[in-house]
Amino acid sequence: MTLNSQILGQLEQQAIELPSWAFANSGTRFRVFGQPGVPRDPFEKIADAAQVHKVTALAPKVALHIPWDKVDDYAKLRNHAEDLGVALGTINSNTFQDEAYKFGSLAHSDAAVRQKAIDHHFECIEIMNETGSQDLKIWLADGTNYPGQDDMRGRQDRLTESLAKIYERIGENQRLVLEYKFFEPAFYHTDVPDWGTSYAQVVALGERAFVCLDTGHHAPGTNIEFIVMQLLRLGKLGSFDFNSAFYADDDLIVGAADPFQLFRILVEVVRGGGYGPDSGVAFMLDQCHNVEKKIPGQIRSVLNVQEMTARALLVDRDALGAAQQAGDVLTANSILMDAFYTDVRPALAEWRESRGLPADPMEGYAESGYQQKIEAERVGGEQAGWGA
Amino acid sequence: MTLNSQILGQLEQQAIELPSWAFANSGTRFRVFGQPGVPRDPFEKIADAAQVHKVTALAPKVALHIPWDKVDDYAKLRNHAEDLGVALGTINSNTFQDEAYKFGSLAHSDAAVRQKAIDHHFECIEIMNETGSQDLKIWLADGTNYPGQDDMRGRQDRLTESLAKIYERIGENQRLVLEYKFFEPAFYHTDVPDWGTSYAQVVALGERAFVCLDTGHHAPGTNIEFIVMQLLRLGKLGSFDFNSAFYADDDLIVGAADPFQLFRILVEVVRGGGYGPDSGVAFMLDQCHNVEKKIPGQIRSVLNVQEMTARALLVDRDALGAAQQAGDVLTANSILMDAFYTDVRPALAEWRESRGLPADPMEGYAESGYQQKIEAERVGGEQAGWGA
Amino acid sequence: MTLNSQILGQLEQQAIELPSWAFANSGTRFRVFGQPGVPRDPFEKIADAAQVHKVTALAPKVALHIPWDKVDDYAKLRNHAEDLGVALGTINSNTFQDEAYKFGSLAHSDAAVRQKAIDHHFECIEIMNETGSQDLKIWLADGTNYPGQDDMRGRQDRLTESLAKIYERIGENQRLVLEYKFFEPAFYHTDVPDWGTSYAQVVALGERAFVCLDTGHHAPGTNIEFIVMQLLRLGKLGSFDFNSAFYADDDLIVGAADPFQLFRILVEVVRGGGYGPDSGVAFMLDQCHNVEKKIPGQIRSVLNVQEMTARALLVDRDALGAAQQAGDVLTANSILMDAFYTDVRPALAEWRESRGLPADPMEGYAESGYQQKIEAERVGGEQAGWGA
Amino acid sequence: MTLNSQILGQLEQQAIELPSWAFANSGTRFRVFGQPGVPRDPFEKIADAAQVHKVTALAPKVALHIPWDKVDDYAKLRNHAEDLGVALGTINSNTFQDEAYKFGSLAHSDAAVRQKAIDHHFECIEIMNETGSQDLKIWLADGTNYPGQDDMRGRQDRLTESLAKIYERIGENQRLVLEYKFFEPAFYHTDVPDWGTSYAQVVALGERAFVCLDTGHHAPGTNIEFIVMQLLRLGKLGSFDFNSAFYADDDLIVGAADPFQLFRILVEVVRGGGYGPDSGVAFMLDQCHNVEKKIPGQIRSVLNVQEMTARALLVDRDALGAAQQAGDVLTANSILMDAFYTDVRPALAEWRESRGLPADPMEGYAESGYQQKIEAERVGGEQAGWGA
Repeated sequence: MTLNSQILGQLEQQAIELPSWAFANSGTRFRVFGQPGVPRDPFEKIADAAQVHKVTALAPKVALHIPWDKVDDYAKLRNHAEDLGVALGTINSNTFQDEAYKFGSLAHSDAAVRQKAIDHHFECIEIMNETGSQDLKIWLADGTNYPGQDDMRGRQDRLTESLAKIYERIGENQRLVLEYKFFEPAFYHTDVPDWGTSYAQVVALGERAFVCLDTGHHAPGTNIEFIVMQLLRLGKLGSFDFNSAFYADDDLIVGAADPFQLFRILVEVVRGGGYGPDSGVAFMLDQCHNVEKKIPGQIRSVLNVQEMTARALLVDRDALGAAQQAGDVLTANSILMDAFYTDVRPALAEWRESRGLPADPMEGYAESGYQQKIEAERVGGEQAGWGA
Repeated sequence: MTLNSQILGQLEQQAIELPSWAFANSGTRFRVFGQPGVPRDPFEKIADAAQVHKVTALAPKVALHIPWDKVDDYAKLRNHAEDLGVALGTINSNTFQDEAYKFGSLAHSDAAVRQKAIDHHFECIEIMNETGSQDLKIWLADGTNYPGQDDMRGRQDRLTESLAKIYERIGENQRLVLEYKFFEPAFYHTDVPDWGTSYAQVVALGERAFVCLDTGHHAPGTNIEFIVMQLLRLGKLGSFDFNSAFYADDDLIVGAADPFQLFRILVEVVRGGGYGPDSGVAFMLDQCHNVEKKIPGQIRSVLNVQEMTARALLVDRDALGAAQQAGDVLTANSILMDAFYTDVRPALAEWRESRGLPADPMEGYAESGYQQKIEAERVGGEQAGWGA
Repeated sequence: MTLNSQILGQLEQQAIELPSWAFANSGTRFRVFGQPGVPRDPFEKIADAAQVHKVTALAPKVALHIPWDKVDDYAKLRNHAEDLGVALGTINSNTFQDEAYKFGSLAHSDAAVRQKAIDHHFECIEIMNETGSQDLKIWLADGTNYPGQDDMRGRQDRLTESLAKIYERIGENQRLVLEYKFFEPAFYHTDVPDWGTSYAQVVALGERAFVCLDTGHHAPGTNIEFIVMQLLRLGKLGSFDFNSAFYADDDLIVGAADPFQLFRILVEVVRGGGYGPDSGVAFMLDQCHNVEKKIPGQIRSVLNVQEMTARALLVDRDALGAAQQAGDVLTANSILMDAFYTDVRPALAEWRESRGLPADPMEGYAESGYQQKIEAERVGGEQAGWGA
Repeated sequence: MTLNSQILGQLEQQAIELPSWAFANSGTRFRVFGQPGVPRDPFEKIADAAQVHKVTALAPKVALHIPWDKVDDYAKLRNHAEDLGVALGTINSNTFQDEAYKFGSLAHSDAAVRQKAIDHHFECIEIMNETGSQDLKIWLADGTNYPGQDDMRGRQDRLTESLAKIYERIGENQRLVLEYKFFEPAFYHTDVPDWGTSYAQVVALGERAFVCLDTGHHAPGTNIEFIVMQLLRLGKLGSFDFNSAFYADDDLIVGAADPFQLFRILVEVVRGGGYGPDSGVAFMLDQCHNVEKKIPGQIRSVLNVQEMTARALLVDRDALGAAQQAGDVLTANSILMDAFYTDVRPALAEWRESRGLPADPMEGYAESGYQQKIEAERVGGEQAGWGA
């Protein structure tokens, strides 16, 4: 098995959006451990993101998080990004760090709080217009901790209304993407806990509304690639938040916890027409590197996606289809495994070199001196962070 | 707190359908332990089911499973039931015990197998016409054990086609109810694994297609009452298969594993208009009593549902709404818990007696002599069973 | 069923230790929502804890967390507590919020870091000597996020060595209690992830070392009461950290998520001789009230434990034993459920009044004016908190 | 990275015991699908197992299950096996398919039932003496379905007593190996549910008692390699039952569900001295091939173990240790992943050929004509099976 020119052509089109917040300090509820050289503003975050793209050619866009990435002049931010070879991507709203949102935002029982949250999304849409972003991504921390704390049905209805107001405001070339999450930070119920809820909500909104699938936001044992298949089939898969998890929303490097799962997901993406620039499916990372260095962590992540995509593209679909038709369980499975077990790394390294990239981007970055530079220069000021 | 006449009036309307197969021998993959007195044919199953209704007035219908309950003359079976004070209810199809279905039924890649499975459902519809049943319930064991074994997307498309053919055939006063199940007997993927898939499928079918929610068919940690709320909100909750579980599809007595969960489910049922004869939501049991006696096990089960419904009806909705509006977490939660912790059993016993029923139906059955009678009489013949 | 004098006598002996940190601000990794009136130092925390005891007579001790509760003069803190009618209890060490512990503490590969962590425990033992505390409780956040990040075996061996050094230092009337936790904040492996590991470690230490069971620190579906039974049987259950959880370590009010589970746990405690002042088993709360008010949340919690203990004491053990011997599954189960479904609240309210306590402690606290007082007085200064 | 002679030397020592029951029909509680050519007696099972060894040189032993594999003359069975190039291995007892064991066996409250179960184990030991088996493996289906059904503590004590009686009977060169299982067929509690319980029991027995770790018998999310590490560290890992699972005890082909998990387990085996003939750790398969062909399924399984062992042996331990010491998370993880992602299959194929084995054992078996032969010859008689 080998990465032929057709596969390499497909890989060349791969684009993975980086989250600006991946370059900031993050942690758990117990502790945020800071790191030297961490950005102090959105400009520095974008500069770091650009380094990932520079050594991999895989990450041409940076997703922003509002208000974490608010700046006075978005044109300036956009130019800064473009100067560094990247573009501004998805705008992520944030309704979980304001005192008003303690008991919810878009689904809150108080109309004033809902309006505040809606207004925040209007502001995000204005920013999108300035940044040229296509997608407004909404993840809601809304939920309750105790049975009876609030009326789940009323909240769901209010959520529908609030989303409709936001949806009305997005432009014709923009999309609303609704993320779901099984639990956390709410511990009894979450207003958008599963793909079914997100799907029902976006169907009610209209054709420019889609589901965002974060690979870490599922119940134990969930067959995530099935959901990928189903959402592609229903025409409602808008984007991925890639990361990996052993337990809950661990936010580890994509592919780190269960590489075979990532492979199966990408196999369904390819199978269902979800791969490539015209597919309408955006690939993003959403990770939270607590103990490893930020920039190399992102490089490792996009490489993991690339390598696993290469393996997914290697699957011999004709042979697979024939074995499936024949009910030959072991052969069908082994055709899939054959692609998974193929070591695509040497061929990818060679291909990278042919494109003027470092054969080993991790090494390329280490040798660039960038890390030493930011650790020396970014002294003073407050490091960007998130969380409690 | 007390069960006032309004609540008793609502409880009087309660009707829980019993599964005929609950009276047959069942077990695990390791062993089926037989019991003396177990029915040997559908007539005996119905006779047993009628005993449950006799002492509880809660179980006026018996669901059938085809082919397990096939008889030559359904009119005779119907009359037999009516003579015993019960009616025939939901018809359950079975596509998991025929050699042809080893790799699937309605979603099988072979058109001939699909047609066989469709024909089986046509036969079920004919039986419904004879038994006067309203609902055709479909649970599919279809799935795969290994990644790559079959094409999940193709299967989903074929499932849609097969269901459409079945749906076309049901009468104007009949309904198709599609059950979902997380896993088992398939271990890698299940064709209808979650409520989202069942919902998307029944929406595509039409307005007489609904979702069946089996309380044991979810991933660990799933908030089942949220799904109840959502399906009621979307107008697509057709029926419940009640049982309880600690781990997987344990099929234990409803309310036995997590009584508080059953309470929360029933609170959402009541909240969302899913209770009562006009709600369109059928209450059924789907349990598998491996170690306890069959008839008392069913009596215990319907009593559990009744008692918990009484508690759900006790919730002080006005006070709850006020506390929720006020963001008073502890008060809102305590109003719910207050209903849960109320011991409704004495009032229910009294009410039963006032209606000519045994105060304690378990005792009433024990004293009836029925168990001794069937253990003595039902000797010889082959006991009804299911499973491997 | 009724709470007879014997049961009331047992209930009178109940003592539940409150965690000082439950009165401080806490949150998730996403946000800590502050509350008015939150304590600003250990003295205020103890004052708040004393209020819980005042209205319930259930919480005579307060557990401290070092360094969160470090003071210059522990004698003064002890006197302060005693003046308010409570005593200082378990000392909890903390090795998860110092920069040095990013990659571990007692199990760290660097001997200097291990020594620092050991020294911290020596300091805790000195504090115990001043506070008169019996138990040193160790919960380790130690672990790794990625396979290969560190050598699990080496860590386990080093942990044994470090614990041995700490154990040597505790006094003859003191105990070392080792808590285990399934995951978080580490996401791949935790050095003490399960009861088996904690058990093997404390057996190696000696007879004054015990296991602490936190009810929220288990894999989904774990039968916690089985572990309670087993540890009591093995003579190694030292203490409980009570709380409740739907998903992971949700740290909700004990009994809130699964009251039946709390009941089953307490039934095994009573069955196994783990109840009462001479049992050697300490009852503690370890909760993290993010959205509800702190003091009422603790009152609700100790009441939940009291009410459920009353139900556990109501179990008719003779009848239960007879049914179990007879293999009468339904009767045995119903004897247990009978106790669970008994509403003990009226009898407890009456008993409280007879002892000069408020019939409803929640109301008693609300009417005391304490909450208004602290909200008015505790203005300025930095509220106590924990987490990132 | 390459499989050097040292690694190949280690691989040459690999021996994986096959379960006789893997060649029989098996299924789920819903259905057992039969297969042509399935053995009808223990002799035919061993003949099939020998085919696996013939094409792989990996499976020199066959584990027996009593009473499934009872024969009149064990010397004859032993000779039959030796003639076919394999030996008889572990003896598995069975206390889950006899009417008497409905409510338990070694832990049953009735002394007569316990004695019956103990006697069964004595019979197994006698068989071991005839077959030359070293290990008596005990897996208990014992447990309860409902809280209160039986006294868990009493059962645990009785289990200890029964095991002690069995342990006394084994010979000086024999071992007792106690398997644990999270759930199934019991749904509320299992008498040996976790490694901690099995460990505590075997420690109480003595130095010839060990724990058997079945990779499918854990709660969701359990870090199995941690348990491997811990049991090796404690000197109590006796054997593996290899298989794989997505949900519960799926009993799929080892490595099929999560190949990376199998890799991590084998890395800990090698790290902890659990690999090789002198390690005292027996490798066994315990799978239940419901839909795939039996013999090729076993071939695939032992190959998966071999390939993954090769990857585990490839880990550069010196480099890994250095990165771990340095706290270099990304490098340490990448050293591990490097071994995992290495495609060892071509080198193994070459090595097989050099040893006179088929390069591709799956193909070698397919071409041998054995499958056609048994399908043609084994007509009539009753196929061996297990389960309900």
